Amino acid sequence: MSEEDLTRRRFLSTVGKGVAAGSVAAGLLRTASAQLRVPDPPDKKLGWAIVGLGSLAINQILPAFSQCEKSKVAALVSGHRDKAEKLAARYGVNSKNIYNYENYDTLRDNSEVDVIYIVLPNSMHAEYTIRGSKAGKHVLCEKPMANTPADCEAMIAAAKQANRKLMIAYRCQYEPFNREMIRMAREKELGELKLIQADHGFKIGDPTQWRLNRAMAGGGSLMDIGIYSLNAARFVSGEEPTEINAMMYTTPNDPRFREVEENINFQLRFPSGLMANCSSSYGYQTQSRVRAVATNGWFELEPSQNYTGLRMRVFRDYVLQEPSFPQRDHFALEMDHMSDCVMNDKTPLTPGEEGLRDMKLIMAIYEAAKTGRTVKV
Amino acid sequence: MSEEDLTRRRFLSTVGKGVAAGSVAAGLLRTASAQLRVPDPPDKKLGWAIVGLGSLAINQILPAFSQCEKSKVAALVSGHRDKAEKLAARYGVNSKNIYNYENYDTLRDNSEVDVIYIVLPNSMHAEYTIRGSKAGKHVLCEKPMANTPADCEAMIAAAKQANRKLMIAYRCQYEPFNREMIRMAREKELGELKLIQADHGFKIGDPTQWRLNRAMAGGGSLMDIGIYSLNAARFVSGEEPTEINAMMYTTPNDPRFREVEENINFQLRFPSGLMANCSSSYGYQTQSRVRAVATNGWFELEPSQNYTGLRMRVFRDYVLQEPSFPQRDHFALEMDHMSDCVMNDKTPLTPGEEGLRDMKLIMAIYEAAKTGRTVKV
Repeated sequence: MSEEDLTRRRFLSTVGKGVAAGSVAAGLLRTASAQLRVPDPPDKKLGWAIVGLGSLAINQILPAFSQCEKSKVAALVSGHRDKAEKLAARYGVNSKNIYNYENYDTLRDNSEVDVIYIVLPNSMHAEYTIRGSKAGKHVLCEKPMANTPADCEAMIAAAKQANRKLMIAYRCQYEPFNREMIRMAREKELGELKLIQADHGFKIGDPTQWRLNRAMAGGGSLMDIGIYSLNAARFVSGEEPTEINAMMYTTPNDPRFREVEENINFQLRFPSGLMANCSSSYGYQTQSRVRAVATNGWFELEPSQNYTGLRMRVFRDYVLQEPSFPQRDHFALEMDHMSDCVMNDKTPLTPGEEGLRDMKLIMAIYEAAKTGRTVKV
Repeated sequence: MSEEDLTRRRFLSTVGKGVAAGSVAAGLLRTASAQLRVPDPPDKKLGWAIVGLGSLAINQILPAFSQCEKSKVAALVSGHRDKAEKLAARYGVNSKNIYNYENYDTLRDNSEVDVIYIVLPNSMHAEYTIRGSKAGKHVLCEKPMANTPADCEAMIAAAKQANRKLMIAYRCQYEPFNREMIRMAREKELGELKLIQADHGFKIGDPTQWRLNRAMAGGGSLMDIGIYSLNAARFVSGEEPTEINAMMYTTPNDPRFREVEENINFQLRFPSGLMANCSSSYGYQTQSRVRAVATNGWFELEPSQNYTGLRMRVFRDYVLQEPSFPQRDHFALEMDHMSDCVMNDKTPLTPGEEGLRDMKLIMAIYEAAKTGRTVKV
């Protein structure tokens, strides 16, 4: 048996064990597992509309459809007709299925589109998700879900009202390395979790980009990448934090950080006694990382959130090991998960409520940093 | 040129650069550098008395004298005459130079002893350091310096009064891997420091040991190993913290933690804007680690405080490298540093004031954890 077969089998067994553990997402995991084993025929693919043709859509999401088994790109929504035309030609999208932000709502009349993927700046997530639900479509929305908990609640209500699915694009929760972190934590493979360390930072460039505009981004590095650290602490542990400490720093007079924070460190306490030390930064170059320290050792991903090249290390009995898992396209996995939920009427593993929870915690982290007090949530 | 020569040369050049940078410890570094190049003749060794023959003395300190160039063991102080006799025989100590805690002060009459090394439980550091100074000897005292800042101040005053040296055994500050961390930070090799992560944890065993007795240990994991994380954040950055957050957790009903804390996570803010996320634990098995994240990448030791086998990794331009340095005996280096300070009338790199500073910060960390407030120091 080849090493690839072995690691693939290990991943499958991982997913299977997730089911046995009876997690909330048991049904979904079973589906994900089935997905890996028996590809559905091509005609079972749902049609997707991609809303917002920025670099994430162009470089990651559109190419990912080639790896999908249940999802195909059917429409594009953009303010730039030229760009949309070129991408439509490249990905075989009928040019009648190119929309702009004005005629976006007429997607309701397009039966080729089942799911809408919102890849817009944060401040536009709520409006376009709600309009998408009202157009009768299922919606996958990029993280962070919105800029305020109130917006998140309105999005959840709109999807419910329309009787359509709403999922937040927490892609890490769908790929094999992060799922192995979850399995090891849940099965207490190295004992009880005691400490999670989750970090992410990169040096942001152009000061005029929307990520550095408070109105559009809702905040700084915490909203954009600290949310990965927060979400990882929650999904690896399977627990919800009860207390938060935080500390923030922004370089004075840096033109990039006139409106949003640069660096933020936060601590979480969980009901079991587990604690987390997390960080995010727009000011320094590091790799994303999630380490889970348990009674008898630790396991980690570093990088943990890169689109490719994830790496696991396990420290057990004073020995470091590097187990390997299949490198899968995160976007293809999450889109197929959403398609499967639509096809089989299941709740996504990361529904709107997951995005809302992070958003409330992000507000609490900012409050802790500003007040210098432990915030109880 | 062999790889060992190369790394040795690199360490020497490191020390040399430390001098060029004009740090407070410039003279000391110069001495350390000279030390590595030209060993002093054997007759230039100072005589040491080891006070407290526990596992650290037996397994680390006594064997380390074989690596010393300026220090030799001349006396032993113990409550167990039998044990002391055996060790005296093994290390060639004249049995007339075996003392107990009652006749300890008569060391003043023993001209073979220049320096006393206090390797007792924390609560005894103050008394035996002060009695050592009063006996006219120079004192190297294990960390943590004492159980309270008041005790630290009394120790500093006693050494000053006696006109004798006082050094705290922060061994990491004397060995090549940690010194390379300091060099890289000071020379801003990867840019400005933005985040320090310093962690240490091990599973403590016997519930009856003095480390788990509040009166003897002064506290739990923070006093014993969290102090390494705290000290590393300070010596790597060369800055003093101004604000502290902390969170503590102790497993209920664990017989080991009836009196002292198990796990503690703390955050530090430094004047430059650098922040640190640190942790220590008596409840989980991990490796000691210090990572310094700078604008353009990071450098780390993991393990960072083990007696042997330190390992460095550097993440620069998206490439991971593992530079190597000589593995030196930490105890031999620190003892020889102390001997050199005595011989040449210099202030140790880690004098009593260094121990006092950590002790004040430890009190502030406990206060932050207890009150749920940011403590300004």
